[in-house]
Amino acid sequence: MRIAVDAMGGDYAPQEIVAGALLARAQLGVEIVLVGDAQAVARELRKLNAAQLVEIIDAPEQVRMDEEPTAVRRKRKSSIVITMDLVKQGKADAAVAAGNTGAAMAAALLQIGRLGGIDRPAIGALLPTLKLGKRVLLLDAGANTDCRARFLEQFALMGALYSRYALGVERPQVGLLNIGEERGKGNETVAEAYELIHKNPNIPFAGNCEGRDVMTGQFDVVVCDGFVGNILLKFAEGVGLVALQILKEELPRGFTGKIGTAVMQDNLRQVKQRMDYAAYGGGLLLGINGVCIIAHGSSKAEGILSAIRLAKEAVDNRVLERILQQSGSN
Amino acid sequence: MRIAVDAMGGDYAPQEIVAGALLARAQLGVEIVLVGDAQAVARELRKLNAAQLVEIIDAPEQVRMDEEPTAVRRKRKSSIVITMDLVKQGKADAAVAAGNTGAAMAAALLQIGRLGGIDRPAIGALLPTLKLGKRVLLLDAGANTDCRARFLEQFALMGALYSRYALGVERPQVGLLNIGEERGKGNETVAEAYELIHKNPNIPFAGNCEGRDVMTGQFDVVVCDGFVGNILLKFAEGVGLVALQILKEELPRGFTGKIGTAVMQDNLRQVKQRMDYAAYGGGLLLGINGVCIIAHGSSKAEGILSAIRLAKEAVDNRVLERILQQSGSN
Repeated sequence: MRIAVDAMGGDYAPQEIVAGALLARAQLGVEIVLVGDAQAVARELRKLNAAQLVEIIDAPEQVRMDEEPTAVRRKRKSSIVITMDLVKQGKADAAVAAGNTGAAMAAALLQIGRLGGIDRPAIGALLPTLKLGKRVLLLDAGANTDCRARFLEQFALMGALYSRYALGVERPQVGLLNIGEERGKGNETVAEAYELIHKNPNIPFAGNCEGRDVMTGQFDVVVCDGFVGNILLKFAEGVGLVALQILKEELPRGFTGKIGTAVMQDNLRQVKQRMDYAAYGGGLLLGINGVCIIAHGSSKAEGILSAIRLAKEAVDNRVLERILQQSGSN
Repeated sequence: MRIAVDAMGGDYAPQEIVAGALLARAQLGVEIVLVGDAQAVARELRKLNAAQLVEIIDAPEQVRMDEEPTAVRRKRKSSIVITMDLVKQGKADAAVAAGNTGAAMAAALLQIGRLGGIDRPAIGALLPTLKLGKRVLLLDAGANTDCRARFLEQFALMGALYSRYALGVERPQVGLLNIGEERGKGNETVAEAYELIHKNPNIPFAGNCEGRDVMTGQFDVVVCDGFVGNILLKFAEGVGLVALQILKEELPRGFTGKIGTAVMQDNLRQVKQRMDYAAYGGGLLLGINGVCIIAHGSSKAEGILSAIRLAKEAVDNRVLERILQQSGSN
């Protein structure tokens, strides 16, 4: 298996991306193609004594974290566009990049295009839950602001198949994000989507999911339109910051507070890391005619390794073929 | 000024409601009418040596926390319906209740009705922000699942006036909840609402507010439809629980963790209280032809006092008349 990796995306490119790609090569046995500034990438490889181990494809341009998705149309020689193109041309089995998820989606649509049977590709985001180590796949996290009920049904199907065959959840529970548990709740589109998802035999539907249930761990997949999903995802980041701020203000208060804070620095660091919901970012591009995994912009080598592992699982377990089959059967 | 208080709502009725009402009577100089099970309420008043201080109006029925809003149609003799009726009949200047916000809105609509110029009343919810002591008014928090752009404009106007004249914010900053900062972002309705709000000279519009900015404290009012608002509000509760769970798992880990946790019990209690976002609940019923403030279901006497203070400010500063004037001028 060959994975194309955009070496230039995210906060720690190219150093950590290259390191992560090499980890994946060693641990997962995949072939890696690194796409980016050839000189910079070669330099990183030499530092790690790995100059001959992976192929480099030069990309003279980059799409920055803060650029609009439309930037990919002007920057046809950017690393993200060329990475997607390798998948399109069959020269790679999957694409992995870090950073600008919107731009990655735009590049994937431009070069690879939609999967048959899927009207609108969606961004899947992984959020932490109350259950340690368990994550929930929220989609659409921002690709489609206006959605029809049928799109939501397709999101539910894609989410279920990715959860099962890429994330390894044996029996994924799919929830529809809504304002009440009962059937018939919600705005017009969501109420209609409930009926479509309920009737679809390929979707393991567990009913409506209220806002407070998104992170309990009782759902594996939560479906919503990209407007709500994007707001929720960014709101989670904001709430995480508020929680950290409360800790900063309250814990060192008073004499015992200062002592307590001093002795438990390690514990607090761990808390901080887990509460920084922003760090859980990144996403899966679902409904593209190729496997595309986007790691969070702040990913270091381990984050890139995880993203490549996810891509490998999706390819190994033929997620795209399963979506094609099951979305066609409606 | 006379405030009608539903003595039977929330987790600590009637005891804490009665205690809070008496606090308000003493501290704010308002007259109180308590509505509820006359015997139970009289008993509480006697315990506090206040039997002669407030009027009691008997209400034989109650709407429980877990009942659907439609329950108020069957329970015409419930305390919440009779409380609203006192406002309708001019026997009270404002209504205060704790608990079931949806039922309170239904009772208010049934008995009091809409304010002129307002198409759809909305529920306003107060959330904590990064700035200690500063809250943000989110509306609509769940009354209207499908909204037109014009409704969102009216929410913005009502939010601004409540923020200024009931919450005492000198120059309220009103934001429109959206998926990007730039004009033109969002779904069709929200993009259209941006233009309406932008053009309205009565709304101090600060532009779009992204999910991550809701709790930074940079906005005083955040406007969205009731579908998104309800999901966001309940999601905040869920995220708060996840944060508390992380603390519970990480802080006592190891020897130093156990020592630190032991010495700083007081600090941790304070953290827990501030992170329990659910406790910030309750709401303002905006767009009703009467001032109606709903305290959170878990409110104790202090929470009821706060709600009555908010009601008094709204009446004193003629918030309803201002909304009437300014919504009519469009």
